[in-house]
Amino acid sequence: MEPVLAANADLAWMLAAFVFVLLMFPGLAFYYGGMVGARNVLNIMTMVMSTLGITAVLYVLFGYGLVHGETAGGLGIIGNPTGYFGLTDFMADDESGSVQTLYFAAWFILFAAITIAIVASGAAGRMKFSAWLIFAPIWLILVYFPVAHWVFAPDGFLLNTIKIHDYAGGTAVHMNSGVAALALAVVLGTRRRRGERPHNVPMAILGGGILWFGWFGFNGSCALGASFLTQVVVLNTLLSGCAGMIGYCIVERWREGHVTSLGMITGAVAGLVGITPSANTMNPLGALMVGLLASAVVAFLMSFKSRIPVDDSLDAFAVHGVGGIVGTLCIVLFAAESAPAGVKGILFGGPIDILWRELAGIVITCGYSFVVTWLIAKALDKTIGLRVDTETEIEGLDPTLHAESAYEIPSAGVGHGGLSGMSPARAAEAVEGALPSPSPTAATT
Amino acid sequence: MEPVLAANADLAWMLAAFVFVLLMFPGLAFYYGGMVGARNVLNIMTMVMSTLGITAVLYVLFGYGLVHGETAGGLGIIGNPTGYFGLTDFMADDESGSVQTLYFAAWFILFAAITIAIVASGAAGRMKFSAWLIFAPIWLILVYFPVAHWVFAPDGFLLNTIKIHDYAGGTAVHMNSGVAALALAVVLGTRRRRGERPHNVPMAILGGGILWFGWFGFNGSCALGASFLTQVVVLNTLLSGCAGMIGYCIVERWREGHVTSLGMITGAVAGLVGITPSANTMNPLGALMVGLLASAVVAFLMSFKSRIPVDDSLDAFAVHGVGGIVGTLCIVLFAAESAPAGVKGILFGGPIDILWRELAGIVITCGYSFVVTWLIAKALDKTIGLRVDTETEIEGLDPTLHAESAYEIPSAGVGHGGLSGMSPARAAEAVEGALPSPSPTAATT
Amino acid sequence: MEPVLAANADLAWMLAAFVFVLLMFPGLAFYYGGMVGARNVLNIMTMVMSTLGITAVLYVLFGYGLVHGETAGGLGIIGNPTGYFGLTDFMADDESGSVQTLYFAAWFILFAAITIAIVASGAAGRMKFSAWLIFAPIWLILVYFPVAHWVFAPDGFLLNTIKIHDYAGGTAVHMNSGVAALALAVVLGTRRRRGERPHNVPMAILGGGILWFGWFGFNGSCALGASFLTQVVVLNTLLSGCAGMIGYCIVERWREGHVTSLGMITGAVAGLVGITPSANTMNPLGALMVGLLASAVVAFLMSFKSRIPVDDSLDAFAVHGVGGIVGTLCIVLFAAESAPAGVKGILFGGPIDILWRELAGIVITCGYSFVVTWLIAKALDKTIGLRVDTETEIEGLDPTLHAESAYEIPSAGVGHGGLSGMSPARAAEAVEGALPSPSPTAATT
Repeated sequence: MEPVLAANADLAWMLAAFVFVLLMFPGLAFYYGGMVGARNVLNIMTMVMSTLGITAVLYVLFGYGLVHGETAGGLGIIGNPTGYFGLTDFMADDESGSVQTLYFAAWFILFAAITIAIVASGAAGRMKFSAWLIFAPIWLILVYFPVAHWVFAPDGFLLNTIKIHDYAGGTAVHMNSGVAALALAVVLGTRRRRGERPHNVPMAILGGGILWFGWFGFNGSCALGASFLTQVVVLNTLLSGCAGMIGYCIVERWREGHVTSLGMITGAVAGLVGITPSANTMNPLGALMVGLLASAVVAFLMSFKSRIPVDDSLDAFAVHGVGGIVGTLCIVLFAAESAPAGVKGILFGGPIDILWRELAGIVITCGYSFVVTWLIAKALDKTIGLRVDTETEIEGLDPTLHAESAYEIPSAGVGHGGLSGMSPARAAEAVEGALPSPSPTAATT
Repeated sequence: MEPVLAANADLAWMLAAFVFVLLMFPGLAFYYGGMVGARNVLNIMTMVMSTLGITAVLYVLFGYGLVHGETAGGLGIIGNPTGYFGLTDFMADDESGSVQTLYFAAWFILFAAITIAIVASGAAGRMKFSAWLIFAPIWLILVYFPVAHWVFAPDGFLLNTIKIHDYAGGTAVHMNSGVAALALAVVLGTRRRRGERPHNVPMAILGGGILWFGWFGFNGSCALGASFLTQVVVLNTLLSGCAGMIGYCIVERWREGHVTSLGMITGAVAGLVGITPSANTMNPLGALMVGLLASAVVAFLMSFKSRIPVDDSLDAFAVHGVGGIVGTLCIVLFAAESAPAGVKGILFGGPIDILWRELAGIVITCGYSFVVTWLIAKALDKTIGLRVDTETEIEGLDPTLHAESAYEIPSAGVGHGGLSGMSPARAAEAVEGALPSPSPTAATT
Repeated sequence: MEPVLAANADLAWMLAAFVFVLLMFPGLAFYYGGMVGARNVLNIMTMVMSTLGITAVLYVLFGYGLVHGETAGGLGIIGNPTGYFGLTDFMADDESGSVQTLYFAAWFILFAAITIAIVASGAAGRMKFSAWLIFAPIWLILVYFPVAHWVFAPDGFLLNTIKIHDYAGGTAVHMNSGVAALALAVVLGTRRRRGERPHNVPMAILGGGILWFGWFGFNGSCALGASFLTQVVVLNTLLSGCAGMIGYCIVERWREGHVTSLGMITGAVAGLVGITPSANTMNPLGALMVGLLASAVVAFLMSFKSRIPVDDSLDAFAVHGVGGIVGTLCIVLFAAESAPAGVKGILFGGPIDILWRELAGIVITCGYSFVVTWLIAKALDKTIGLRVDTETEIEGLDPTLHAESAYEIPSAGVGHGGLSGMSPARAAEAVEGALPSPSPTAATT
């Protein structure tokens, strides 16, 4: 009886956490959308949102089995999808009152979809939407499902044989997506307007903030219930994001001479990536260090961005790939034995074998992801063609591929920004300042 | 003792779900706001948000009793509001540790308010705000409260006599609001700028995404706790939204030749509407089917939009009315007996009587809602007048009715989008591309 | 055993509530960002978000002890930070299955950070970002930590000696931040473009809506679990926000002649501020009254805004300071004995001593906050200088301080808003209306 009731409370938290993660999709779409040009914003948002549809169908048909089914041949390489078609068997209530397989099916759909959504960022502004709709499911099948099996299935070889420590998906989600975005960007080539500035930074900041919100669901749900562990993870996720802001801003100030709003939110995301594999291994000071280090390294790399020949368009490799690697290395270096995972970092005298195990996880995940993603992208490029033609790219993907334009907003100060329609009090307020109109266009037209 | 504790966990989930639903209001305001013109956006957002204030006051004074009070005369038509004034009696803790009537009062306020908020969309861009503030409470009293009593009160005649199956409000919320929006649009007439394109599509996409987030609270809370049923509902709500994206995009590609971002998010919403009455009757494949069908039918209807003489301005009738009907018919056709509700669709050999019951629910709800809404709107139009004058409509409702303008954003490239203030590194990055400035205005002014 | 399980359910709710509060940060950034000019938006958003980083580090190092440590010398003035460095001791699981100190550390970081984030609004558009990064931690140490100790620590003198009633932070959070924003605005002086209109009102509305969402976490978590009290608080938080909309709109209609969207959302926030100290003392009618009164008073004050010499730039003093005071006075006047707190307002014949106690709380908090904030700001102004130079202010803080510009959005109608790239069906739709292009710039360029 009592276990049922405790399980019940766990379920209440897990349901809420699931819903938090769902908001990461429009959040990520907003985050990326704000960072591209005004004529490519709908394209990247559509790519991000489309991952939900693609992943859900694959997961229900056979993806669940590939990831979580009994490992084929006992090898820990891929699951056996037999018997999972339609997830029909999960409709039987086991009366445990707890989180059941059905929940995990929904939950893992979000994990898979957010991973391929991050990959989309590597293709910003230059990929055919039709090619994306072919690339994405192939990538899920050939890259995500195997890697997820290695790490998330109890008999996956990274988890079971190599015994890596990866709390909430530093490998299968972050390194995997970051490296795949890089490989896709390599095959696609550089955008013609690579230096284009973000068209709507407030949008990107809100998107990043929503990601942070969702991250508590992401990391918090990996505690599988409402427990002391969950509280540790929530505190560490907060602290690492906070420290991520600081680390990025310090390096940006040093390298570029100023602190940007986009840098601050990027730093928070980098800190969150860093704490993803390590959230159950750190005490509060450790979580601050993870955030500082992950974001500082990412910021340092970003300062060389314009010299790097590959157009990692929205910095997925830097933020998710490198951030995930740094977070994993932090476990190796200074995991706190007092934290729930009980891992002792080698700086604190812990056993050295964790270094080899974590390095193996990093190398195998990144290597596999890069090579297979590159092969998929190259094969599609040679056959259907991945990249839009020059004219389309110049005109922008929104009007050409989607027959839409993101904005129909009249500029301020031209017939519109006037005082007509204001109450006298407001109008008086508006002209109170001694300076000319804040709208530069007013003077020029 | 144990029941108290399990109840406690149910309460934890119900509280979280309530909060999710609250976010649907700014979400809906953003969704609709992005779809109208730049000079009507604040008007529609204000209409949407105003529903919270209007509904809360009515509910506390007498609405709760009209919906949930003992049915007057045993007829199942309307509740007796006597004794519910101020909800004062709900302040006594029954010590159950569970979800108490007080919670449901708050919860039903959100349900009622979101319904009338959807109705607002039918009036976009042409209704006097003062008329809205009169129409909305009258509509709640004459349309929403009775229909909600029929469906949500245990002795309401649709629930108790006709015994319709409607899991979470396909009738009282979605068909009701969709049909009422249509009736209101009929009385108001067509907007002068009917073909106007959405002024801010990213805003609409985020708004739609927030709706999806809130929908887990909406559908999930109708499970009345954290249980196996809740998990089924959460998975089905995810799957139907995902499939909704796909169904819409396929039909849009066929009918219009392209996939739009707005179509994708509209499809998700249509899928979510479809699963609202049916979430506890489907297995995962069924939920995918509901989403595909609901959104495909909606998308097909939308392709005739410009030929239809009624200006259902933001497609509430198509998405909520038709989507709700399709979702309800899906129960009739292929409800899975293995799902928690245990309803067997007639395609699987289930009893035919569910067809008559569901059809009765659809016809009665839609018929009543259309006729009474039309009568209210017509009566107000003949007396106070519903529609703004032509000049106001041309100038836009934001400056005229609200003395506000949504945006004061200087256009890019005019004195502002330059490189001044950028660090040398950033400036170099910005000019790196070989193409001319991304800003078209730079060349023309 | 059973207490563990009930505690477990409490924890599930508290975790969710924590996550809700996190979203208030991007929400507040969006709310304030929308209200400033287009060239200062990133600056205010960065100031708001930066508070998370600053507060987290201080809290982990010594802030937790200053607020929650044993009161120094038994005086109730400040806590003893000894022994809290790094929060390391909190890593021990007490096996209670409940909310542990670790959780409260994370939770109180958000409370502190949101308070200083509101203070930031008083400096909108004219403060050096470097000066902010010095001011903010000093303010937390000298103002927030002591005041929070007085109110939140069990042996704090306001709570323990004066025995004020403040449910969820009317003093330490709202009056404190509102008054401090005013003091900072006094020292900084008036913006040169004080009358500047909000550059993006839909952004502010969404931001305000997100704040409302987060407020359920804020107020709801102060119930310390999922209980009957939590349900009362959730209902009252809903009702007061709803009534806040109404109260503000009525006064705005009377004083300015129209109802604005920004007024409606400001009213909701004012209602939410009012219910923060009083949420456990009101029945539903009382909660409606709190919202009506708090927002009506705020709206009335705002109608004199342009005549007041201090530039309380984003109305933090009016909304949070005055709103908090009104909410506190509502407890004194008409707290309902039937509400969980069992406080009887003096209008209902309750004992008069609550008046002195609440007035003492108001005067001491506001007085201390104003004087010490003013001293800090003045000292920094005389040394490092707080305000940017005139040229920077005219050009805007985003390009000058952050080397960023918020928007690169081409204006509608110029080469971009055309019909090119639209499908024939859409294009036909777009020209269907008899009126000229909705874009005013099309005609003038």
